[in-house]
Amino acid sequence: MNPRLAQLQPYPFERLRKLFSTVSAPSGVRPVSLGLGEPQHPTPQLVKDALIESLGGLSRYPATGGEPALKEAIGSWIERRYGLPEFDAGRKVLPVLGSREALFSLTQTIVDASRERATVVCPNPFYQIYEGAAILAGAHTAFAPARRERNFACDLKAIPAEVWRDTQLLVLCSPGNPTGAVMTLDDWREAFALADAHGFVIASDECYSEIYFDEAAPPLGVLEAARRLGRDDRGLVMLSSLSKRSSVPGMRSGFVAGDPEIIARFLLYRTYHGSAMSPPVQHASIAAWGDEAHVRDNRALYRRKFDAVLPILEPILEVRRPDAAFYLWARVPGADDVFARDLYAATGVTVLPGSYMGRAVDGVNPGEGYVRMALVAGVEECVEAADRIAAFCKSR
Amino acid sequence: MNPRLAQLQPYPFERLRKLFSTVSAPSGVRPVSLGLGEPQHPTPQLVKDALIESLGGLSRYPATGGEPALKEAIGSWIERRYGLPEFDAGRKVLPVLGSREALFSLTQTIVDASRERATVVCPNPFYQIYEGAAILAGAHTAFAPARRERNFACDLKAIPAEVWRDTQLLVLCSPGNPTGAVMTLDDWREAFALADAHGFVIASDECYSEIYFDEAAPPLGVLEAARRLGRDDRGLVMLSSLSKRSSVPGMRSGFVAGDPEIIARFLLYRTYHGSAMSPPVQHASIAAWGDEAHVRDNRALYRRKFDAVLPILEPILEVRRPDAAFYLWARVPGADDVFARDLYAATGVTVLPGSYMGRAVDGVNPGEGYVRMALVAGVEECVEAADRIAAFCKSR
Repeated sequence: MNPRLAQLQPYPFERLRKLFSTVSAPSGVRPVSLGLGEPQHPTPQLVKDALIESLGGLSRYPATGGEPALKEAIGSWIERRYGLPEFDAGRKVLPVLGSREALFSLTQTIVDASRERATVVCPNPFYQIYEGAAILAGAHTAFAPARRERNFACDLKAIPAEVWRDTQLLVLCSPGNPTGAVMTLDDWREAFALADAHGFVIASDECYSEIYFDEAAPPLGVLEAARRLGRDDRGLVMLSSLSKRSSVPGMRSGFVAGDPEIIARFLLYRTYHGSAMSPPVQHASIAAWGDEAHVRDNRALYRRKFDAVLPILEPILEVRRPDAAFYLWARVPGADDVFARDLYAATGVTVLPGSYMGRAVDGVNPGEGYVRMALVAGVEECVEAADRIAAFCKSR
Repeated sequence: MNPRLAQLQPYPFERLRKLFSTVSAPSGVRPVSLGLGEPQHPTPQLVKDALIESLGGLSRYPATGGEPALKEAIGSWIERRYGLPEFDAGRKVLPVLGSREALFSLTQTIVDASRERATVVCPNPFYQIYEGAAILAGAHTAFAPARRERNFACDLKAIPAEVWRDTQLLVLCSPGNPTGAVMTLDDWREAFALADAHGFVIASDECYSEIYFDEAAPPLGVLEAARRLGRDDRGLVMLSSLSKRSSVPGMRSGFVAGDPEIIARFLLYRTYHGSAMSPPVQHASIAAWGDEAHVRDNRALYRRKFDAVLPILEPILEVRRPDAAFYLWARVPGADDVFARDLYAATGVTVLPGSYMGRAVDGVNPGEGYVRMALVAGVEECVEAADRIAAFCKSR
């Protein structure tokens, strides 16, 4: 068996199950989970309709590269969303079955494990797939810590020069999971300079890009940043997904876009990897990428939750409205796993210990002392959870 | 970039496009493709209905391991189809997004490339994914040739003992693509003895298992063979798919079943690999695995094509009804690629050169001199194609 499998870290939710195994929610109290980042808003009708309309496509093998109409729809969306004119979707876009699958297969495509100390650099804390994909590709990992004093921006200066020299891939997440931090143009300038100096690829996970607060100020994307800085997209790819944007986590639809040379190698890998998108899902994805009304509604619903929950939690915990995404990243008293366990036992509310999403580097785990709260349930449920958290904190 | 990508062979259909690039079908003649093995029968209504019913599942993340109800439905099907009582679906079944994806990810899970000369043995000729998956897993490949004199059974004796010593995975395909050959109990006995002697895994690709001619004699499967021979399923996995059985190549649904230790490692790999099955597709798959009426109809339709086409081709070419599957494996005069090219230029009929599906070992490519004809179009179209092929052969 593949020995790299033995190097994988336990998954955060596995650790959470273990943490909760000795306690239970109080009886008579309805549990509320702010643990999993699973969008729960209803699926837009136009997506369902497009899927039903195109079920004839079940009797055709999908091409790995995706149908030209889907690539065009994604290309047009990129043009509108990021102000990138004449985006060459035919060469620069590849549909994928969601961010997880894409992050994994892209990492396998890029990493050359035959080179000594091949390294993938990830944010810290981070979405665990980054690390697992690196390990299974045979790479070492290094971690750029989120700095509280810098609005949780990733500190690329924390990575030593000798690590950058071995780096083949830098994964960034903006808006960030779990902190919600959005990278600024200056942040991107710094990342591009490092990539150019050391010749590595940047993969920008932008799966939360459409969940933001100010309709006039959507989060900056990597390809947009490159254009604004007068840089081409060599060595740059973005990953996006419909899961959060259109509340269809069960549809498994996203895309990777950017450097056409990387996209071409990625397509070659995927020809064998075999995750082609079902034709009806391609059709439904075309409908989803082509419509913004349901996305605005979706954002408005998340905004209502933050507006309702923050006044309850802000007086109690160190927590603030994030730049974007649907998480609260809250500093809690004491150890974050003990806090999460005791909170669950006292109130039935599940939050994710921040340390489970981080890795200790030189003894410091930048997730430590925080918990992640995913505002994915209904407004009332989120408010109910916030009330219970506030009462729990006051009682301690 | 991953240097293993550069070792991949050109895909057969890529080579076919190149082969045909200098010729065109005669004008005024409707082209008929027997090239791609893409099932084209209509999707059963019960599958579409189940999908539509369960679109609410688009708003849930699917678990990588699949819903218990799907695993149970697959387990029940295995029990009925292979006479395996009390099949422990919870530990022995994993849903996958079709055979290609599963063959690829299973190979990545099993191969330990850190061991020198890690080897994957494949049939020859064969479905190209076997080789690509092995290369991308960092393994060497070795090939067991199909023997014309043995009804195109794979000759495992052709593999030298020193290759078996380094073998980590033996991929078999029964019913075989492209030959349609079904492995007998004796064939399995030989394969099991080698696996036990050398400690490798057997992955049995059984995606064509439900396309056969005699309703009373379905093809033998690997798990069934093991049971009949009094062997447990240690080191054995089967791969199956709905694509051919239920004519839903665009739904991307299949499963891997067998040795629970392999399934557990495979699940761990897939947690990162990220190809979880969409909940509505899981629901539609439950409906499909639970019904045999549509599968019998499907078989009857393929049978009609063989009954209609064979009397036209048998007097002209060395070709016979295969054991199973929907291919004809026909010996042709001269070089198979020249035959395919000239046939296309003269008649507009596409067939796949057998040599494109084989690899030369010691100067002999066992696909050479054959073409594969996929009887996937309608009955009339298949008959029309056979008539054109017969006329073409007579005119040469």
